[in-house]
Amino acid sequence: MSIPELKDCYLDHIAIACSDLDATQKIYEDMGLTFLPEREVVEDQGVITAFAKVDAKANIELLCPHGEGGPIHQYLEKKGPGIHHLCFRVKDVAAKADELREQGYRLLYDAPKVGAHNCLVNFIHPKSTGGVLIEISQKRES
Amino acid sequence: MSIPELKDCYLDHIAIACSDLDATQKIYEDMGLTFLPEREVVEDQGVITAFAKVDAKANIELLCPHGEGGPIHQYLEKKGPGIHHLCFRVKDVAAKADELREQGYRLLYDAPKVGAHNCLVNFIHPKSTGGVLIEISQKRES
Repeated sequence: MSIPELKDCYLDHIAIACSDLDATQKIYEDMGLTFLPEREVVEDQGVITAFAKVDAKANIELLCPHGEGGPIHQYLEKKGPGIHHLCFRVKDVAAKADELREQGYRLLYDAPKVGAHNCLVNFIHPKSTGGVLIEISQKRES
Repeated sequence: MSIPELKDCYLDHIAIACSDLDATQKIYEDMGLTFLPEREVVEDQGVITAFAKVDAKANIELLCPHGEGGPIHQYLEKKGPGIHHLCFRVKDVAAKADELREQGYRLLYDAPKVGAHNCLVNFIHPKSTGGVLIEISQKRES
């Protein structure tokens, strides 16, 4: 069984919403993962994040509310903890979003926004994707 | 920011439950992924699966009911399509399950079972893991 090589898209991260960052980090550490010592606060999303590598490039990203009223806080209130979204890395997020929009996919933003780690991101609504919120993300020169 | 290297655990796959395998495969192809041409029927789980690589080792695994009454059929009836579980590859699934059980995690099987691709697998209940069904899987010599 030979698996086709990746071309212009790969998994960047699996985002998991949680209300207790330390306790959730410990669960994935117990599985065998190692987290970055640094955590990142994304103020305008109202979250604090912790990252652990799960493959050559892909990470687990834990998302915990930082303050109240942000989208992850609301998500936890409504659905409880669990997998929030998948993020795929693409070369050009604006071009990819245009291409997907033309194919009938519902994008959340009209134009890409700046996300964690200074990436340009957009999201595809789970109604377009069989129930999975999908982020597409482009790395920028820092 | 340096990301710690993986030691004895990495992501093997993200399993996504769907009721229309061709339509769901097309969504991930539209994102940029390429699927294996072969699909695998796992008779005793009542599913047909399709795989696409998303990183060096990790895959997306689409799970679609094959017949009625299997766990994915029931899952779709109850929750609709979406991410079903994450699977981490470990070296020794029985030893890892024992270690996790001693730490208070709730495992689904008393002893590992044979899963897709002839792996030995067990599952950790989402109540133990912050809302995420986690599979641990060990590759066997074929």
